[in-house]
Amino acid sequence: MRAITLGPEGTYSHRATRAVADEIVFTESVTGIVKSVASGDIERGVIPIENSIEGSVTESLDALAECNVSVDLEIVTPIQHALLAQDHDFEVVASHAQALAQCRTYLDSEYPDREIETVSSTARGVERARNDSAVAAIGHPDTSGDDLQVLAEDIQDRSSNTTRFVVLVPREERSVSGGKTSLIIYPNTDYPGLLLELLEPFSERDISLSRIESRPSGERLGDYLFHIDIDTGLYEERTQQALSEIESIADSGWVCRLGSYDTKHVLY
Amino acid sequence: MRAITLGPEGTYSHRATRAVADEIVFTESVTGIVKSVASGDIERGVIPIENSIEGSVTESLDALAECNVSVDLEIVTPIQHALLAQDHDFEVVASHAQALAQCRTYLDSEYPDREIETVSSTARGVERARNDSAVAAIGHPDTSGDDLQVLAEDIQDRSSNTTRFVVLVPREERSVSGGKTSLIIYPNTDYPGLLLELLEPFSERDISLSRIESRPSGERLGDYLFHIDIDTGLYEERTQQALSEIESIADSGWVCRLGSYDTKHVLY
Repeated sequence: MRAITLGPEGTYSHRATRAVADEIVFTESVTGIVKSVASGDIERGVIPIENSIEGSVTESLDALAECNVSVDLEIVTPIQHALLAQDHDFEVVASHAQALAQCRTYLDSEYPDREIETVSSTARGVERARNDSAVAAIGHPDTSGDDLQVLAEDIQDRSSNTTRFVVLVPREERSVSGGKTSLIIYPNTDYPGLLLELLEPFSERDISLSRIESRPSGERLGDYLFHIDIDTGLYEERTQQALSEIESIADSGWVCRLGSYDTKHVLY
Repeated sequence: MRAITLGPEGTYSHRATRAVADEIVFTESVTGIVKSVASGDIERGVIPIENSIEGSVTESLDALAECNVSVDLEIVTPIQHALLAQDHDFEVVASHAQALAQCRTYLDSEYPDREIETVSSTARGVERARNDSAVAAIGHPDTSGDDLQVLAEDIQDRSSNTTRFVVLVPREERSVSGGKTSLIIYPNTDYPGLLLELLEPFSERDISLSRIESRPSGERLGDYLFHIDIDTGLYEERTQQALSEIESIADSGWVCRLGSYDTKHVLY
């Protein structure tokens, strides 16, 4: 199975993708991944969807809003940041801004006087450390290779402990089995209580929401899409009933069923 | 007035911050900005909160979840990306991943064969273009200076047309005036229909939601905080009533009133 994800080699996205593909192609943009899958160029795509240090989660949500791909699987992985360097005499810590933020407590207490350098990915930071003994990087301990030492493991803050990815397939392969469903609702209108009305059909049928996020539609200021994950599958009668009810409320807009899927926990 | 925001000089955050401060200090992390304001080191902080190409919006939300700063003003600005280079003979387009994504339609149609290079900020891309005639950058047209030409203006996709920042002040200076309020609700429990129950007190009082986002609390998997913006001020009786009702529903959790504020539209 061929899959496309965020590169370069050694990113957390790469590690997650290994759980579903044996041949992996890299790109630098989430939008590019969605396009490759939608056009059928590549069979699978893997993008970060929550707590990511690669790509931007809002870019992922906006790319899915085109509704031209489906979600086939969710991958949940623990974040495991290690401090990597040639030795202890480093002067600079180089990593992605969000990885640096996730390790701030550790860095502030252990290395308050070292300079911080923001680079475009954790993999670039590791590359910097490999080429320069004055530089330490933050990355998964496995990326240390032969030339870097793991100076400390699990240096991330407690609040940033897992990250989620989704596996994308072409729209035609949309799955309705699986215990969780991702939806996008575009009501194309707004009034007080609208969101409540849109959520009532779930609550009446004992369907739990596991995520909700509003995103600007891009049509006009204050016009929103709702990205919603629910804890039931599209194959279930109650899910279908709730969605038809929502469609009649949002009747000048639309409801996109991104697909139903299961969760795979990956320890890398 | 002194303010801290995301650097280096020339970022979109910098441009937004000029609307509220005459002395500007730069840092590379949203978490660092929130800390500087919370500790009283710097009077104001400006962070991106929606559609940002600097910092990460989820990092902003998570940094606010500590509830140790207040929101004093919202700044809405149009995104205006230009293509900047020494001349038309460039081979590479270097910019922040999200800026590249926001201009993908333009780049794909006008320059399909040029190489794409991801750097850590739009400002770094402009610096690369300044030092190397083979490199073009994406940035605000005003950042071109004397040595770069503006090859094209307004090259962003239509769907990424504005970005939002918030101005942070120390918790003690929390404002209750202003027509919009940001809240964080942590119910510390979960059951089907919980979110609906939490939103009913707003809808019953004709209070509109302008944004809703769930974020992992970091406590345990599946435990969420809700970031909610409403279109009424904390000074209003109905807002206060709705919030006390929500507090009694979320009585093993908490409700954080980040503050009420107005919106300033800035054209840079």
